[in-house]
Amino acid sequence: MSGRWPATPFLAVDVDVLDANVERVAAWADARAVALRPHVKTHKSPEIAHRQVEAGAHGITVATLGEAEVFVQDGFDDLFVAYPLWVDDDRRRRLVRLCERAAVRVGFDSLDAARRLAGTGAIGVVEIDSGHHRTGVAPDAAGELAARAQDAGLTVAGVFTFPGHSYGLGAREAAAAQEAEALASAAASLRAAGVEPDVISGGSTPSLAAAGEGATELRPGVYVFNDAQQWELGACAPEQIALTCHATVVSHAGGRLVLDAGSKALGADRAAWASGFGRLLDFPDARIVLLSEHHAVADLGGAALPALGSTVRLVPNHACNAANLAEEFVIVHGGEPVDTWAVSARGMNS
Amino acid sequence: MSGRWPATPFLAVDVDVLDANVERVAAWADARAVALRPHVKTHKSPEIAHRQVEAGAHGITVATLGEAEVFVQDGFDDLFVAYPLWVDDDRRRRLVRLCERAAVRVGFDSLDAARRLAGTGAIGVVEIDSGHHRTGVAPDAAGELAARAQDAGLTVAGVFTFPGHSYGLGAREAAAAQEAEALASAAASLRAAGVEPDVISGGSTPSLAAAGEGATELRPGVYVFNDAQQWELGACAPEQIALTCHATVVSHAGGRLVLDAGSKALGADRAAWASGFGRLLDFPDARIVLLSEHHAVADLGGAALPALGSTVRLVPNHACNAANLAEEFVIVHGGEPVDTWAVSARGMNS
Repeated sequence: MSGRWPATPFLAVDVDVLDANVERVAAWADARAVALRPHVKTHKSPEIAHRQVEAGAHGITVATLGEAEVFVQDGFDDLFVAYPLWVDDDRRRRLVRLCERAAVRVGFDSLDAARRLAGTGAIGVVEIDSGHHRTGVAPDAAGELAARAQDAGLTVAGVFTFPGHSYGLGAREAAAAQEAEALASAAASLRAAGVEPDVISGGSTPSLAAAGEGATELRPGVYVFNDAQQWELGACAPEQIALTCHATVVSHAGGRLVLDAGSKALGADRAAWASGFGRLLDFPDARIVLLSEHHAVADLGGAALPALGSTVRLVPNHACNAANLAEEFVIVHGGEPVDTWAVSARGMNS
Repeated sequence: MSGRWPATPFLAVDVDVLDANVERVAAWADARAVALRPHVKTHKSPEIAHRQVEAGAHGITVATLGEAEVFVQDGFDDLFVAYPLWVDDDRRRRLVRLCERAAVRVGFDSLDAARRLAGTGAIGVVEIDSGHHRTGVAPDAAGELAARAQDAGLTVAGVFTFPGHSYGLGAREAAAAQEAEALASAAASLRAAGVEPDVISGGSTPSLAAAGEGATELRPGVYVFNDAQQWELGACAPEQIALTCHATVVSHAGGRLVLDAGSKALGADRAAWASGFGRLLDFPDARIVLLSEHHAVADLGGAALPALGSTVRLVPNHACNAANLAEEFVIVHGGEPVDTWAVSARGMNS
């Protein structure tokens, strides 16, 4: 396609904003001498991952074996499955095949999981809990788990964490500090247990700017697109938002703007601290006050309503879940559609 | 497939529970002499829609032209697009083609939208607001809009509403009463304006049991599957839940159950009144306290944790959004996988 917009709703990526985001964060990591290993679950698009690697990324991060398979098929040969996989017999066969074609690291937070990873060719990385309280062991327990995993036949490269508690208003700096402390403690725990932590891996988009010293690599994902959450957390400016959902005004019912994009195009994410179900890029004071599967109802705070039939750019709350709903991105340059890129790993949850 | 489970996470449909749901609601509608026109956006599956029609449904309801195209392609010939479509030139061509192959009704809530529907072959239905405050005109304004739309060349068949405010704890009966009153008022408004309301259409799954007299048809969607929202609203029993997401226990971090299904498999829906991000079918006291893209963290309230690597059945909060994330349903009979059905209209938002 070129010069022709598809029917709304669709996801559009401003390639100039995207490239600026990719290059800015790559330069930042380079200046700090920390390896950037971006999480590609955000975009699930080999085209975008290639741009990240060309800008200096040291490999990529994925969440599932299915994502890994898509990206290895596309030529990527250095992947970290930053997830505590439970490798049953089928997954073990898939992991062995991946390790024949690429360098693959896999997370674990139990000895049982480590035993199943042993012998696949994958390198293990101990997951630690730095305050998000989702998965991972306590930092000072990382050494014993690493040593026992090595005894069970798994090569252990180091430690990783996801400071997901950086997703909260005013929480970014404190989460980054906790992350740095937890990683340092876990690395010391490995050394004390006789395991050299070559990999000390952290990072999230909100905590990135405040990331402490000590990590050898960072794994942000959302920064390529940014979204309404990053905007509201203060982790990006609206000018740095590359991903929008173009939607048509279908109704002015109740004096509000009703758009033909809902939770099946944007995702239903709404953190407790979010101001609504997404934002409008060109109406910063507007709030999406109601979201159904095919309706977003926006209160424009008194601004004149765009006409029925006109197109508005919505900013999803959470770019990763929005991207996972679409088959493709419409690529925009200079305000015009110039290409489409497949969301090749969409739905690869297994 | 037969006798073999795919890798988790995946959506499973218990076909016996599904059939019981389909037949129970069909019999209920038949006994009340109201036409059932189920909303197929819930399942997006022609296989399931055929079962609904075989059980007595009078046509189907869809939300988008893209959904309509999938179901017309599969042989359905009586559809209601229960949405205030804005028909631009491209959509007009698509709608004309649909109307050549099927009887198609389309919603509208403005004269501008009605003018664009005129001449396509579609029949118009005025949307009214019965208290959800999303789209639709006030009930007593329906007659004037219907008459003006007919003057503009659109045949108008009647009125419809969606009582979405039935989605609230203790709100079902009051919403159903408001719906009945609004539909009666709107129908009277049409008659006063000289337009006979052959179609008086309402319905949602939570309000169904309390639906008043006066509607000629009802359009529930979720009842075929049910979900955690219906369970918590009291609109279904857990034994009536046909759709679950099978997930693997990947971690016991923090003494909680961590499963490999997250918002990319379940959807991120969480109403303000919901007890969590979904439920566990076999652990009614459990609550999902944290949901990431690939993690559901469940607090089992002191119950013994299922072993690492075991499979657990999650109940999504909102079946419609969960289904829209999957390419297929695994069909289960007698506890065993017996087939897969495509989610053919997945992602058809346009």
